[in-house]
Order: sequence, then C-alpha cells, then structure tokens
Amino acid sequence: MTTDTLNPPITDTDALIADMGVRARTAAKRLAVATTTEKAAALRAAAQQLRGEAPAILAANAHDMDAGRANGLSAAMLDRLRLDTARLNGIADAVEAVAALPDPVGAEIDRSTRPNGIELARVRVPLGVIGIIYESRPNVTADAAALGLMSSNAVILRGGSEAIHSNRAIHAALVAGLAESGLPTDAIQLVPTQDRAAVGALLRAQGLIDIIIPRGGKGLVARVQDEARVPVLAHLDGICHTYIDGAADAEIAVALAVNAKMRRTGICGATETILIDRAYQGPRAIIDALITAGCEVRGDKAIAAVSPHVTLADASDWDSEYLDAIVSIAQVDGIDGALAHIDRHSSRHTDAIVTEDRVIAGRFLAEVDSAIVMHNASTQFADGGEFGLGAEIGIATGRLHARGPVALEGLTTYKWLVRGTGQVRP
Amino acid sequence: MTTDTLNPPITDTDALIADMGVRARTAAKRLAVATTTEKAAALRAAAQQLRGEAPAILAANAHDMDAGRANGLSAAMLDRLRLDTARLNGIADAVEAVAALPDPVGAEIDRSTRPNGIELARVRVPLGVIGIIYESRPNVTADAAALGLMSSNAVILRGGSEAIHSNRAIHAALVAGLAESGLPTDAIQLVPTQDRAAVGALLRAQGLIDIIIPRGGKGLVARVQDEARVPVLAHLDGICHTYIDGAADAEIAVALAVNAKMRRTGICGATETILIDRAYQGPRAIIDALITAGCEVRGDKAIAAVSPHVTLADASDWDSEYLDAIVSIAQVDGIDGALAHIDRHSSRHTDAIVTEDRVIAGRFLAEVDSAIVMHNASTQFADGGEFGLGAEIGIATGRLHARGPVALEGLTTYKWLVRGTGQVRP
Repeated sequence: MTTDTLNPPITDTDALIADMGVRARTAAKRLAVATTTEKAAALRAAAQQLRGEAPAILAANAHDMDAGRANGLSAAMLDRLRLDTARLNGIADAVEAVAALPDPVGAEIDRSTRPNGIELARVRVPLGVIGIIYESRPNVTADAAALGLMSSNAVILRGGSEAIHSNRAIHAALVAGLAESGLPTDAIQLVPTQDRAAVGALLRAQGLIDIIIPRGGKGLVARVQDEARVPVLAHLDGICHTYIDGAADAEIAVALAVNAKMRRTGICGATETILIDRAYQGPRAIIDALITAGCEVRGDKAIAAVSPHVTLADASDWDSEYLDAIVSIAQVDGIDGALAHIDRHSSRHTDAIVTEDRVIAGRFLAEVDSAIVMHNASTQFADGGEFGLGAEIGIATGRLHARGPVALEGLTTYKWLVRGTGQVRP
Repeated sequence: MTTDTLNPPITDTDALIADMGVRARTAAKRLAVATTTEKAAALRAAAQQLRGEAPAILAANAHDMDAGRANGLSAAMLDRLRLDTARLNGIADAVEAVAALPDPVGAEIDRSTRPNGIELARVRVPLGVIGIIYESRPNVTADAAALGLMSSNAVILRGGSEAIHSNRAIHAALVAGLAESGLPTDAIQLVPTQDRAAVGALLRAQGLIDIIIPRGGKGLVARVQDEARVPVLAHLDGICHTYIDGAADAEIAVALAVNAKMRRTGICGATETILIDRAYQGPRAIIDALITAGCEVRGDKAIAAVSPHVTLADASDWDSEYLDAIVSIAQVDGIDGALAHIDRHSSRHTDAIVTEDRVIAGRFLAEVDSAIVMHNASTQFADGGEFGLGAEIGIATGRLHARGPVALEGLTTYKWLVRGTGQVRP
C-alpha cells in the first residue's frame, strides 16, 4: 500500500473535519430519536458483520503487523495491535454486550411539580458528537463506536497509523451493520487520513464536536489536554496509592498490596506507591511478598532499613507511574501522614486504605480527593466493568461532568422538560 | 479615591491570582469536610453582617453611583448598580435562604453491591475552587459567595470596576461572618485589583481554579468563553422561541406570547422569536396583543400581511437577542417548520410550544435540543428559583456537566466510594 492510500490527497484538513462534523451532527439528530430496539439491532448487526468479515479484518491486521515489525514497534505495541480469531470474537462479543445494556437516553433523572402546577422533569439526552483519538489497539474502534451508538451519539474516530488497516476493516464492518439496520452510516466515521493535522483539527472543532476522549499513552493524552479547545474527558496519570494503616489486617494487607501492584502492572488502576503506617507491625512481610512476586521495591530510608532487597527511592519515585513491576514504598505517620502524601502525589485517580478501623477508613474515604477511593479493596478494581457499568469508554480524573469510570451515562447530558397548562410567570 | 487605591501596585498579576488560588485550595479542603451546620451558621453570620454593615455598604455604593454618573453609565447600568436598604435586605435574605437549602455535599447519587461483595456508592463532593467574573450587580458578590460556600467550594470573585466599592464592602461583611463562624476567610476572596490582566490570569489558572462562571453581558461571556483554559459554565445568548401550533388554544396562545416576550424583556429567558403555524387561526390576536402591550413586531412577509403595524424583519432578526420590547414573528409550516427554524436559530437555552395536541407536544419536547423545552408554559419561567432550586448561579447552555439552571448540585462533582473486605481482583 502506498503513502497515497494512507493519506488520500486532502487539500484542507480543517475542511475535511468540518465536513465530517456536519455529517456527524446530522446523524446525531437521527440517533437522538432512535429507539433502544433500533440501536440494539444496529449493534447486533455490526457484531455479525465483524464475525462475518473476520478473514478481511484479520488480513488487514496482518498487514499492520508486518508494517509494525518492519517499523520496529516494541513487542508490547505489537501485542496491543495484534488480532486473532479469539480477540476478534471478543470484540464482537463486547459490541453485543453493549447492545444489551440499559439505554441511558430518555431516562428520567428527577421530576417535580411546582406549586403553580408546572411539571418539571430532567431526562438524559445524548451529548451529540464525540471525537475519539486513540492509539494501536484496534478494539477501541468497535468499543467506542458501540458505546457511542448505544448512547445515541455520533462518533468520529481517529486511530493510530500503526493500526490503520485494521481500523478501516473494523470500521467497514460496523458501517455495514448500521446500513443493514437503517440507522445513518455517518453515525460512525473514521478519519480517512493519518495526517497529524487532522488531530489538531479535531481538537479545535468547537461547535462540531461536543467532547473529545483520548485513549492511549500519556503523550497522546497530554497533547490532547494541552491543545484541545473542545472539552476533554480523560486521565493523564494513574499514580494510585495503597495505604496500609496501623490497624490493617496483616493477611489482607499482604494480599492487597501484591494484587494492587502486580496483578497487571500496565493498567492505570495499578498501585504505584504503597504507604505503610509507622505503627504497622508487618512491613517486612509486605516487602517480601512483593519481591517474591517479582517486583522491584524502592523505599524511603525507613523502608530500606527493613530489607536488604529494597533500593533507596529518590524524590522522583513518588511522582512516577511505573506501569511496570516496580513499586515505591514510604513509611508515613498514620492517617494524617498518608493523607498528606496522597494530597501531594496522587494523580487523583484511585487511592485505597487497608485498615480494620472504621473511623480511620471513614476519614480516608471522606478526605482523599480522588475519583475513586477504596477501603480494603485492590486498586486494580478501578474499572467500569468491575463497577457494573457494562463497559467503559475511559476513566476521567477531571472534576467536571463525569469522574472515574465513564460509560453510557457519562456520554449523556440532560435537558429540562417543562409541562404546563398555560401558566404565565407573574 | 485615587487610581492607586483601585489598583494597588501588583508586580505580577499571575502571581497574585496564583497566590489567591493556593489560598482558595487550602480553604476548599477545610470546606470539603465542613458540616451543614457549620456552613449554614457561617452564612447566617454573613447575612447578619450584611445587615449590620448596611450604613458602610450603602455609603460605598453611593460612592460607586457618583462615579458611575460621572462616567456616564446608562440609566439601566446605574439601576443594576444601585443599592438601597430594601435591596440590601433582599441580599441578606437571599444569603439566609441559601443557608436553608439542602446541603448537596455528601448526598448519595447511587449505590450498588457487586457479586464479589464490594459495595459501591457515588457521593457528591464539591468542585473545589470556583472563579466568578461579573459586572455591575453587587448582589452577585453575596449570591455567588453563598452558593459557593453552601456547596463547600471556595470562590474567587472578580466584579466590575464600576461596583468596586460596593463589592469590597459586601465582601468585608461576608468575610466577617466567616471569621465569626470559624470557617477559613480565604473561602471567599475578592480579586483586589481592577487590572484587566487579572481576568486573563483567572481564565488561564488551570489547576488552581476548577471552573469559571461569568455573570454579565454578552461581551463578558464571549471573552471568557474565548480565552478560558479553565472550564466555563455559562450561556452566551438567550434566543428563545415560542411556537404557536395550529392546535393551540387561542386564549393560552395570546397569554403565553405576551408573557413570554413582555413580562421582563431584559432576561435571558424572554422569548425573542414567535413562530406561528400556518394552520393557526388567530395570528392577528397575538400580534395585536403584543402591540397593545407596547411591543414592536417584526414579521416575515406572511406575518406582515396580517397587520399594518408589523414591520418587515430582515435576516438578522432571526438571530437577534433583543432583550427589549421587540419581537420577531415568522410563519412556519407546522411542527416540522418550527423544529427546522429552532434548530437553525435557537441558542439552545429555552424553547416552548403552545398546543393542545399531546403528540405534537411530545415531538417538540423530544426533538428540540435545548437546555429547557416547554409545553404550554412561558419561557420566562426559565429560572432556578422557579424550578425550585432555591437559587441559581446561572444558566448553562453547554452540553457538559450541568445544563439549564445551575444551583448547588451543579457546583458539585462526585467520587466513587468502594468498600471491600479484602477483595483482590482475579
């Protein structure tokens, strides 16, 4: 495939994105009044297409994998990029799972009747047009499109160039599903060019795109947050803490420390720093269990004195998201020391306390200002699926609109319905 | 008073705002754990101070009024600026009313238990630090501070230079109330300089200020929306429509058209354009009633043909927020014509339908994509007080976070509380 096919000649990227935005808006108007049945049928048709087009999708993916190897992509990136029959079935299953979720659109948030007889109701309506900017993982193409469609939003997808053929093949299957169902095919659009200017155009598309959701590494998210004029729903870092209080159960403390750090080290909910109360009696068991599990432990002086296998942390460790089998451990003075450390270093994603003291736990839950705060649970549970949301489009650490795992509800806004019988305002 | 007092020498406006932001954040942490009783007591003490300091506040206001007259402020602006004993009592009453509202902080949005026994709850927490940028009306100083405090947010207030002495006197009374109550006085800060660079610094204060709420004319809101890097909650225009359907009750139609347009012409919920269904039998009665009420009527050709008192509208009329006793009236082809006109010209603030046909009304409520959509009610009801919210900090027409009238709930976000008994993620 030539560069010309990757980047069809587009005289003006802004004009391309503007055109896509206008078409998305038109599709969004139709989606806003689509029934749950229509949307679910479209998603099931899309899933069918994904299964039926498996040979074409896997061939496209093989093309991307070849190019990736030729371009020297890391093993981790190649693994994120790779599709096989099982993974593709998983993608189709996920689309069907979204089709089975409760429709957020039209749900009533609250209702009241005013003394003058006017009836008020707040009902959920779609956000409108969502821009998704992502990297390598081709499953995001289907996941984001499914969540967007089920919440009656049109989506404009912009995947990474390393996955372009996979994304195009998946997109074609999704659009074929839409076409079968009678919903507008512009509801799911894929930016046709890999020109990086297209990302800039999306980020500046105020009025055309209602929200941008970046999915990918820190570099991508930072660029999006920095350049966007359209509102962004995202998290930049996942510097999550697990605090082992003096009143923690020793067995639970070891199990949670190891799981929170080591279950999967590459996810944003993985614990990066463990704080151990000076009063806690068993720090050595925690350190040993982590080391046994294959984790490198970097500690402050007090922790380094506990075990010869601990290396001394430097200042940057407390602000590091390792996303790897490395943990930093600090000794703190009780709940106040833990709160102070977390307030200073947390990325306000997920922070947990391990304690049997309910009062101390209550203070932690009340005073830690993070999207998710946990008591006696692994920070690895920070996930929309684990929270029962059915799926998630991402985790947000901003303070506006939606916080923590964002799923269908987070892709809606609301409007006020006011029903009168001719009331005039005095 | 000299210019030096209005603008104390500040070497670096950004540093000033940064310092205020840091102090606000510290205060916000204390407010986040303040009890409802503490906050209500602080607001009642502030209201007492406003009453007790009435002579000083009215003297400061007289100073602003003198300067305003000398500077040639319009009669409307002088009226917005003017305080007297009754108005000041009204301001104190409003602060006490906010103290009596239900505390939004800590309220549980939802709760669930997962199959693994983990308990989840979403609870409301404050946004953090709110910047309010406003013009002329000194009551905003107290209103915004009260709503901010009751929702446990610290506020940084930046009022107009024409009201600077009034605002300082009101601010001093509020702070005296806080000091009595033991809550941090940095919870309510007033930007001490009228240097316009301070507004720019507020708008760029990402990380220091969580949200900016502009209160004032279109020029102010447009500047804020254009320059802000901090999220903004606002509405730029209130181009509201009242659509008189063919199946409207004639008496209700006349009453609503006149009230929606003429009750108060200067508010954002005032109807600016009336759409009349071609099938509606009594357009003349509506036009006559408006003219009798003192309204200038600008119509399209069909409407101009109905009455000699109608002048012909030009294209700009359909996008004009008159905020005056002027209305534009267009004839449309039924509900579809009305929806098309509104889709093209509405500022998505408030739009209403007048009809006795429930099916048509249902379509209008479902398909008009505005913050507030009404059936058989005056658009002048678009107000937080009328909606039972107790007070409002403003009306938002954006799609994210909060839409329509924004009161205490809109000044909060939420966090996820996760309570386990040692669960690890498989």
